[in-house]
Amino acid sequence: MKLIELYAKMKKDVSYIEKELERSIDTEQALLREASLHLLKAGGKRIRPVFVLLGAKFGNYDLERIKHVAVTLELIHMASLVHDDVIDDADTRRGQLTVRSKWDNRIAMYTGDYIFAKALTVVTKLPNSKIHQIMSRAIVEMSIGEMEQIRFFFNTEQTVRNYLLRIKRKTALLIAISCQLGAIAADAEDGLCTQLYHFGYNVGMAFQIRDDLLDLCGTEKEIGKPPGSDIRQGNITLPVIFALQQPELKAPLLEQMARIRDEDGQSDISDFISLIRKSNGIRRSELLASRYIDRAITALQGMPNIQAKKDFIGVAHFIGNRTY
Amino acid sequence: MKLIELYAKMKKDVSYIEKELERSIDTEQALLREASLHLLKAGGKRIRPVFVLLGAKFGNYDLERIKHVAVTLELIHMASLVHDDVIDDADTRRGQLTVRSKWDNRIAMYTGDYIFAKALTVVTKLPNSKIHQIMSRAIVEMSIGEMEQIRFFFNTEQTVRNYLLRIKRKTALLIAISCQLGAIAADAEDGLCTQLYHFGYNVGMAFQIRDDLLDLCGTEKEIGKPPGSDIRQGNITLPVIFALQQPELKAPLLEQMARIRDEDGQSDISDFISLIRKSNGIRRSELLASRYIDRAITALQGMPNIQAKKDFIGVAHFIGNRTY
Repeated sequence: MKLIELYAKMKKDVSYIEKELERSIDTEQALLREASLHLLKAGGKRIRPVFVLLGAKFGNYDLERIKHVAVTLELIHMASLVHDDVIDDADTRRGQLTVRSKWDNRIAMYTGDYIFAKALTVVTKLPNSKIHQIMSRAIVEMSIGEMEQIRFFFNTEQTVRNYLLRIKRKTALLIAISCQLGAIAADAEDGLCTQLYHFGYNVGMAFQIRDDLLDLCGTEKEIGKPPGSDIRQGNITLPVIFALQQPELKAPLLEQMARIRDEDGQSDISDFISLIRKSNGIRRSELLASRYIDRAITALQGMPNIQAKKDFIGVAHFIGNRTY
Repeated sequence: MKLIELYAKMKKDVSYIEKELERSIDTEQALLREASLHLLKAGGKRIRPVFVLLGAKFGNYDLERIKHVAVTLELIHMASLVHDDVIDDADTRRGQLTVRSKWDNRIAMYTGDYIFAKALTVVTKLPNSKIHQIMSRAIVEMSIGEMEQIRFFFNTEQTVRNYLLRIKRKTALLIAISCQLGAIAADAEDGLCTQLYHFGYNVGMAFQIRDDLLDLCGTEKEIGKPPGSDIRQGNITLPVIFALQQPELKAPLLEQMARIRDEDGQSDISDFISLIRKSNGIRRSELLASRYIDRAITALQGMPNIQAKKDFIGVAHFIGNRTY
């Protein structure tokens, strides 16, 4: 199954969430409205809202309630992207100019703050303190993950474990709670909410590993920004950590990375990319991503065999094979 | 009365909040811990927590409940300061290095995000959706205020009204809800909570006007950063708006400001400062600040004559006369 087929089935509800997203960021402050809308219109797969909707199918599906969770989680994600683009000096994302590039870093920082603040006003419409607590803790972990990423920039001694803990915080947790909070907001049974959390966590891990693979193996057209952005900013990802474990590749890779670091990421990185592509780091990363997908699907075992379960499995397979 | 005398009376509770603040930002991520602690230890008047405590005296004062509100509001304030320092390229604040200056802009941005996220985990411990709603709306307004400040940088056509609306969002609202939410968290009567909101709003307006006066009239030692920081970044404050209304000062002021803008705030600003100091903008701003203090005190009329009321009045007078 393809993601687009899933969206076709849920089209009405996904469009409704899209409109709610637009409504949620509206403001009379022209610059904030423009910058936020620019970000929203740049698109994205809307995986978090879709997971909220699917999760809610395991309880009493009431769109008017769960929309608040869906919108909040997508806004939190969007806010973190604008701030990341500032940190990464990113000019494009999804083939569009970033807010910091179209305007400037200051405006991007405040646009992120604004979208984040708006996310809070949306979620406070649901007076469910369990939801608030789960969400606020995940946001703390996300910000720790961002700082960990900076701490490990160009650290060639880092382990696979360091990497996995970092992407858990940076990406997997928010996807995990998307599945879980959709179910909680729909008053699904506790056990189901926990299963959905584990599903989302494993899908999220696979998602980020595939994302990091794409940055090394994709074309600019496929990934919406120049390949190799990660290493340019010092972000050493899983395929690179694996490649460094190959004795014959270690010395040339260290040399390349020292050069990229010394030249502040402005270097020609084609030699570095070739080394990684011919290493076994690509294959090993793909295998680990597949293993996370298997675990995600296993996490759903024993849950009611409703359409949403099949859809979750479909998305998981889609992410396991994603090439864009 | 001096602020320090007020603090002496409330010493035990204020110290307790201070410890809770420290506890709240603790994390194993060394960099986030250091940067957050650096910020916390740099001090500040803790006006927001003190107002929360005083506000709570009008209801059932239970420190274990209201501490969550006090800590959250101070953390939100701290987070906004770190982001402001990034925007303003500020090197010092309260005589201490800023996070962006001691580390860098990226670390300051994520430290702000982290402290803000921590603020949310603290407030979610109080399952009172009214508190959550009031707080999240204020945060949205704050971020709009920040963007408005950027929009009006070096805009010499702005009105007193533009200025007042901006400082309402940027400063007065958070102080207003500090008074209000302390009372709400202590289950005080609705009418009292609203009176306290109006008190805090007016004190907050006076506070920001005095702060902007200090930037033009204070010494570096008094204000903990070089005077004239506002105009260097393009922030046109009330005394300047008033001074621009004096026909004989308008042309020389416009000339000075055009030069400061063209030189990206790196100019010698002593001529500009002299012009403002000899204008009637200083006196008119002082008068407006006093008027806000009067309104703040009027807002308390009819409230129970408890010690907290006297303390609120004391702080109001202190802020009305503040010279540091």
